[in-house]
Amino acid sequence: MTEPLARRLFAEGLGTAFLLAAVIGSGVMGLNLSGGNLALALLGNTLPTGAILVVLILIFGPLSGAHFNPAVTLAFAARGEFRWRDVTPYIAAQLIGAVLGVLAAHLMFELPLWQLSLKTRTGAGQWFAEFIATFGLLLTIFGCVRAPSAAPYAVGLYITAAYWFTASTSFANPAVTIARAFSDTFAGIAPVSVAAFVLAQLAGTALGVIVARQLWPARERA
Amino acid sequence: MTEPLARRLFAEGLGTAFLLAAVIGSGVMGLNLSGGNLALALLGNTLPTGAILVVLILIFGPLSGAHFNPAVTLAFAARGEFRWRDVTPYIAAQLIGAVLGVLAAHLMFELPLWQLSLKTRTGAGQWFAEFIATFGLLLTIFGCVRAPSAAPYAVGLYITAAYWFTASTSFANPAVTIARAFSDTFAGIAPVSVAAFVLAQLAGTALGVIVARQLWPARERA
Amino acid sequence: MTEPLARRLFAEGLGTAFLLAAVIGSGVMGLNLSGGNLALALLGNTLPTGAILVVLILIFGPLSGAHFNPAVTLAFAARGEFRWRDVTPYIAAQLIGAVLGVLAAHLMFELPLWQLSLKTRTGAGQWFAEFIATFGLLLTIFGCVRAPSAAPYAVGLYITAAYWFTASTSFANPAVTIARAFSDTFAGIAPVSVAAFVLAQLAGTALGVIVARQLWPARERA
Amino acid sequence: MTEPLARRLFAEGLGTAFLLAAVIGSGVMGLNLSGGNLALALLGNTLPTGAILVVLILIFGPLSGAHFNPAVTLAFAARGEFRWRDVTPYIAAQLIGAVLGVLAAHLMFELPLWQLSLKTRTGAGQWFAEFIATFGLLLTIFGCVRAPSAAPYAVGLYITAAYWFTASTSFANPAVTIARAFSDTFAGIAPVSVAAFVLAQLAGTALGVIVARQLWPARERA
Repeated sequence: MTEPLARRLFAEGLGTAFLLAAVIGSGVMGLNLSGGNLALALLGNTLPTGAILVVLILIFGPLSGAHFNPAVTLAFAARGEFRWRDVTPYIAAQLIGAVLGVLAAHLMFELPLWQLSLKTRTGAGQWFAEFIATFGLLLTIFGCVRAPSAAPYAVGLYITAAYWFTASTSFANPAVTIARAFSDTFAGIAPVSVAAFVLAQLAGTALGVIVARQLWPARERA
Repeated sequence: MTEPLARRLFAEGLGTAFLLAAVIGSGVMGLNLSGGNLALALLGNTLPTGAILVVLILIFGPLSGAHFNPAVTLAFAARGEFRWRDVTPYIAAQLIGAVLGVLAAHLMFELPLWQLSLKTRTGAGQWFAEFIATFGLLLTIFGCVRAPSAAPYAVGLYITAAYWFTASTSFANPAVTIARAFSDTFAGIAPVSVAAFVLAQLAGTALGVIVARQLWPARERA
Repeated sequence: MTEPLARRLFAEGLGTAFLLAAVIGSGVMGLNLSGGNLALALLGNTLPTGAILVVLILIFGPLSGAHFNPAVTLAFAARGEFRWRDVTPYIAAQLIGAVLGVLAAHLMFELPLWQLSLKTRTGAGQWFAEFIATFGLLLTIFGCVRAPSAAPYAVGLYITAAYWFTASTSFANPAVTIARAFSDTFAGIAPVSVAAFVLAQLAGTALGVIVARQLWPARERA
Repeated sequence: MTEPLARRLFAEGLGTAFLLAAVIGSGVMGLNLSGGNLALALLGNTLPTGAILVVLILIFGPLSGAHFNPAVTLAFAARGEFRWRDVTPYIAAQLIGAVLGVLAAHLMFELPLWQLSLKTRTGAGQWFAEFIATFGLLLTIFGCVRAPSAAPYAVGLYITAAYWFTASTSFANPAVTIARAFSDTFAGIAPVSVAAFVLAQLAGTALGVIVARQLWPARERA
């Protein structure tokens, strides 16, 4: 990374803010317009999330790596491709950006600024889904190390798919999970459900790192 | 730019005309076929808008830069990457093209040629949404300066997302906003609502230029 | 073109057959499953048509140019980029392939093999729509001459958009129009409506050739 | 192939597992949320399947070729581009992965782990559809041999289209067909219907190999 740390942290925070604004905002819009049909609501939530991910990784990837996700930051560190001392500032920037993105979505839709979700998401199926979702996300990211120009499209398409094939609609991101607890809207998650989701995500991350190391040996430190 | 100004203006006008024909036309088609389900109407409006943007930027980008948007033209001028003396003709071409595109859509759907929208779009949430939408659009464009072949896809995907995650469905373009006032259809906006939208867009443009300058220093003048 | 004519004609015929199978087949599937919601039926018709066009142009483009469309063949000939003596065999291959594709769709869905559409599509709005649709298609194709690797995606996305923003759902292809007269399904067109559609398409082709010549001077004969 | 066989088999198995998890999981999610509208259920099944295919071929293609499909493995062998002695292990890995993917989907959605589908899929139309679907898939794959970077997108888009334009929703893959017999959900197929589907797929494969040999002569053994 040749960019100064401050610029990288700003890119991580701004990117994660846009990601959350898209997740929460399109959830509100989708549900509002869906006439109660949840497939349409989820479709209206999926397409913008996948699309904005492609854009954000395209534009912020060259600056900060476009992690937007503590699990990804930890995984790169575990592979020796990211400095451990930058992990905490990255995660902090992601969390701050994520919450700001939620607030921005609430402002746009004229909803109460601070909310807590009442939507409980729990059970072994959901946790296994988060495990699988994060495992697959990590495979997607590390599988593109040799073809980095495809990575933005791969990640956007992976999340587009995972919103539908995982029972939890694929949070796959601790910062996203925590921030979504602050929104009692379509994409929200009750605070009581957060910890288990994050644990499942970290387990999926660990498996992803292990399997990726077997499949695609780590590249040299950049 | 090695193209003569007349050709560039023609490309801007023609491209903006197709953009507006797509926005208005697909709004009419979507609402007509939706059976009253507004999520389907917006989906039928979103996909064509995002898709045609990719196409128009692919084919007109090498000619005129494919701005189709006074905010983009002003932003490039403010960055020193576009001649100030070309700004007025560009914006004029965009406005003329945009109105012609609206008329073409009305002709295709056999609607009254000249209309004024009755759909009021107002309030702090909508204005903040336009501010965010335009800010994000500018980041998308300037973030692709180093990877220009991805720009058509990035802009198309950004607008696809922003139609859903911003409360205003993301006009993000003063020429588009003014032209859409001339259509009392799904994508219309009441003339009384136009000025505040444009102001919010210009504010978002200004922030976009400032932030982009920090994140991606300006390239040399082409 | 270094490929022998027979292989090029086979590619044109086979590609046009798959195109029509996709247009007719997805129209049947979309309407069958839509529960009467025409936006869903058109969506189920649009996505497969745009997607298969990308695929067919990717794989057959290097062989035959992947015209699949008499208007495109004529336009390339008019630009001096395609031999006039190959025009008739190309159009014959496209027509034969198109009809075979319709028959294949009928076979798959266990519908009567030979049908004539009863769906009248007429009126100045529809004709103007076909004029605009074909004009835009030609601009898309000629605008990609300098970036041919983007052409499959551009054409697929253009048709995806045009299905919704043109009042006629964008046939934009005389061979497709004629073949769709042989199917009394969602995508059909009554034989009595065909001639005017084709005339409008040819007028749009002529304008496309003229405008493209101004915007993008013809490349050398390959 | 420079990768050791064990890694290639693991990649084939893991990729096929994710493919089936996506097919089955998104079928369950789509139908659950669709409110009974089958077009929405199929849309919710189509987009994730097409998207995950792009991702899986991008990341596993460089390792194993990303067949995920006995028909594809056999076809490459028939063309002399894949060792015959690796065919059986590849097909075994695909079948094991496919069944594990089905089980993973059932676990995520808290459904009984082992199921047999009751959904009969039979008749000449369905079998002809599978023949056409597999023929087209093979053309797509072999048509991209000269432009391999487009192959992931081409295959994903082809299946996206074929889900809608073939009357059978395009299984086009014997391993997928067998595994889907173990799921009594939206994407399932009754065991009694499997053999005819596989036979039709093999016939389509044979025609694909023959036609592709004419259109695109085989590349040298890698």
